[in-house]
Amino acid sequence: MTAPIYDRVALIGLGLIASSMFWAMKRAGLAGEVTGYARSAETRDTARRIGLCDRVCDSASEAVADADLVVLAVPVGAMAAVAAEIAPHLKPGATVTDVGSVKQSVIDSVGPHIPEGVFFVPGHPLAGTEHSGPESGFAELFDNRWTLLVPLPDTAPEPVARLRGLWEGMGAHVDEMDPAHHDLVLAVTSHTPHLIAYTMVGVADDLRRVTDSEVIKYSAAGFRDFTRIAASDPTMWRDVFLTNKAATLEILGRFTEELFALQRAIRTGDGDQLFDYFTHTRAIRRGIIEAGQDTDAPDFGRVKAGS
Amino acid sequence: MTAPIYDRVALIGLGLIASSMFWAMKRAGLAGEVTGYARSAETRDTARRIGLCDRVCDSASEAVADADLVVLAVPVGAMAAVAAEIAPHLKPGATVTDVGSVKQSVIDSVGPHIPEGVFFVPGHPLAGTEHSGPESGFAELFDNRWTLLVPLPDTAPEPVARLRGLWEGMGAHVDEMDPAHHDLVLAVTSHTPHLIAYTMVGVADDLRRVTDSEVIKYSAAGFRDFTRIAASDPTMWRDVFLTNKAATLEILGRFTEELFALQRAIRTGDGDQLFDYFTHTRAIRRGIIEAGQDTDAPDFGRVKAGS
Ligand SMILES: NC(=O)c1ccc[n+]([C@@H]2O[C@H](COP(=O)([O-])OP(=O)(O)OC[C@H]3O[C@@H](n4cnc5c(N)ncnc54)[C@H](OP(=O)(O)O)[C@@H]3O)[C@@H](O)[C@H]2O)c1
Ligand SMILES: NC(=O)c1ccc[n+]([C@@H]2O[C@H](COP(=O)([O-])OP(=O)(O)OC[C@H]3O[C@@H](n4cnc5c(N)ncnc54)[C@H](OP(=O)(O)O)[C@@H]3O)[C@@H](O)[C@H]2O)c1
Repeated sequence: MTAPIYDRVALIGLGLIASSMFWAMKRAGLAGEVTGYARSAETRDTARRIGLCDRVCDSASEAVADADLVVLAVPVGAMAAVAAEIAPHLKPGATVTDVGSVKQSVIDSVGPHIPEGVFFVPGHPLAGTEHSGPESGFAELFDNRWTLLVPLPDTAPEPVARLRGLWEGMGAHVDEMDPAHHDLVLAVTSHTPHLIAYTMVGVADDLRRVTDSEVIKYSAAGFRDFTRIAASDPTMWRDVFLTNKAATLEILGRFTEELFALQRAIRTGDGDQLFDYFTHTRAIRRGIIEAGQDTDAPDFGRVKAGS
Repeated sequence: MTAPIYDRVALIGLGLIASSMFWAMKRAGLAGEVTGYARSAETRDTARRIGLCDRVCDSASEAVADADLVVLAVPVGAMAAVAAEIAPHLKPGATVTDVGSVKQSVIDSVGPHIPEGVFFVPGHPLAGTEHSGPESGFAELFDNRWTLLVPLPDTAPEPVARLRGLWEGMGAHVDEMDPAHHDLVLAVTSHTPHLIAYTMVGVADDLRRVTDSEVIKYSAAGFRDFTRIAASDPTMWRDVFLTNKAATLEILGRFTEELFALQRAIRTGDGDQLFDYFTHTRAIRRGIIEAGQDTDAPDFGRVKAGS
C-alpha cells in the first residue's frame, strides 16, 4: 500500500461506476477519505448500509467541500445540473472529472460551470456490466480495462497525470484522446452495438407468431448474448444516444449499408460473398483475445445456469 | 448407468456437435458402439488420437453399416450429398437424424434419399459455441438446453420417442415443432442475431477513422460480445442463410423497420421513445434468467482474460 493519490475524493452519483471506483480505491489505498452523494435517500441509505463511502452526505455541496478530486458519476444528461450545483463549493486547486460515456457533450455542458482555479479532466472507463445501482459495483471492474482521458488542450499536465495515476492504481490502462475521436470510437465499440441489441430484442418481443416463452426457452442459440446488453440501464442509454447523436447516426448509416449488402447476398443466394464476409470478421476476435480483452473459453466460460 | 438406448450409433461429420454428442452419450452410457466418419483424413486422425468414437471409419458407408441410429452432423448444405452416399448402406429399421440449424431445407433435400423401412427424424440441438472441429466438443454442451425434434407427419411414434430419450439422456429438454415454425423461431433467436453481429464486426473492421487496434483495445464496452458470435464457422453460417432465406429476410425486414424508428428518435431527440423501448426489452432478459437459460452474474461471470 502506497501513499494516497488524493487525500479526499467525492463521488457524486453512487451507481455501478462510482461504487466500483470506491472499492477499487480502497483495495489499493489510493484515497484518504471518500465522501459520496446520490440524489435519492434510498441510494444513500443503501450506501450507508453496505459501507460504500467513508461518509455519505445528504447534499452534493457537503460531499464536495474540501475534496481534492470530485467524480461526476451520473447519467450524461444529468451532469450539467450537478456541475452547476457543486460549482460554488469546489475547493481551489481541486480536480473535477466525470465518467460519462460521451465526451464532447459533457465538455460542452459541464465545462462552463467549472470555476477558475479548478481543473476539469473528463474521463471514461471502458468497463461496465448490465447491472446498475450502488450494490452492483466491485473492485475488479477496471482491472486490465482501458480508461480514456480527454483533457482539454489548455489543462496543466499535473492534474491529468495524477488522475491517470488513480486509474492505473484502480487496475486500468489509460489512453488520452480528443473528444470527437472518443465519441466516434465509442459509437463503434459500444453505442451502436447497444442500439442494435436493443432493437433485436425488441423485434423478438414484438412478433405475434413466435411467443415470448419460445424466445426465452430457445435463446441459447445466440440471442441471449443480445439480451444481456439490452438489459442495461435505460436512462443511461437514452442519454448516450441523445448526446452522441452525430457519431451514432454515422455508424448506424454504415451498418445498414452493409446489412443491406448481406441481405441482398442472401436474397440472390450469393454464398461466396457471405462466406468471405463471415471469414474476415474472425481476425478481430483473435485480436481481442490476444490483447487480453476477452476470454477464449467457449461461451465466455460462463457458468451454466440451472444445470 | 442404464441400458443403452441404441446399440450402434454412427456419427457422420465429427465437429463440435458430433463430438459433444459422443462425450454426452458416453457420460450416460446411452450407446453401445459409436462409429464416426469425417470427410478429411486430418479430422479422422484427430478423432483417433483423442479417442473420439469407438471406431473411426474411412468411409461413411462403413460407418453406417449396422447402425441403429445415424446422425448427420455436417453443414446444412452438405446433408443431401451425405444422405445420398449412405442411403444404400442403411440397415432396415434404422433411424436417421440430423442436427442441422435449418429444418425445412434438410427435410426437402435429405428426405427423398431415405429408403423405405428407414425412419427419418430431423432434429436440432439449440446449443453451440463459437468453436468448431473435433476437439471443441464436451459432454455438458446440451445440459439444460433445448433440442427441437421436427418429425414428419407420417413417422411412427416409436423412433421419435427413442430419439427423444437419447437427447434427454444427453441432458437436453426436448420439444417438437413443425419445420416452418422451427425455421421462423430460429431466424429470431439465432440466425438474424448472427447476421447482425457479423455485420457490426464487419463495419468496425472497415472504418478508416477508427483503427482495428482501437476496436480491439476498447472492445469491452459492448462490442466484444458481438465478436464472439461473429467468430462462428463461416461455412455453417453461409449454409444457414442460403437455406433459411425466407424467414431470415422476414425477420431482417422487421429489424430494419424498428431500427429506423429508433434512428429517427435519435435524430429528432425523442428521449421518451428511446427510454420506453429500452425499458420493455428488460423483461425478456429476466425471463431467460428465470428459465435457467443464462446466468445473472455480471458479464456472464466470464473469466477475466489477462488480469
Ligand atoms: N454502466 C456502464 O456500463 C458504464 C460504463 C462506463 C461509463 N458509464 C457512465 O457512468 C455514469 C454512471 O453510470 P452507472 O452505470 O454508474 O449508473 P447507475 O448505476 O445507474 O447510477 C447512476 C447514479 O446517478 C444518479 N442519478 C441518476 N439520474 C440522476 C439525475 N437526473 N440527477 C442526479 N443524479 C442522478 C443515480 O442516483 P439514484 O441512485 O439516487 O437514482 C445513481 O446514483 C453514466 O454517465 C454512464 O454513461 C457507465
Ligand atoms: N455450431 C453450432 O453452434 C451448432 C448448433 C446447433 C446445430 N449446428 C449444426 O450442426 C451441424 C454441424 O455443425 P458443427 O458446429 O458440429 O460443425 P463443425 O464443427 O464445423 O464440423 C463440421 C463437420 O462436417 C464436416 N463437413 C464440412 N463440410 C462438409 C461437406 N461438404 N461434406 C461432408 N462433410 C463436411 C466436417 O468435416 P472435416 O472436419 O473433415 O472438414 C466436420 O467434420 C451443422 O449442420 C450446423 O448447422 C451447429
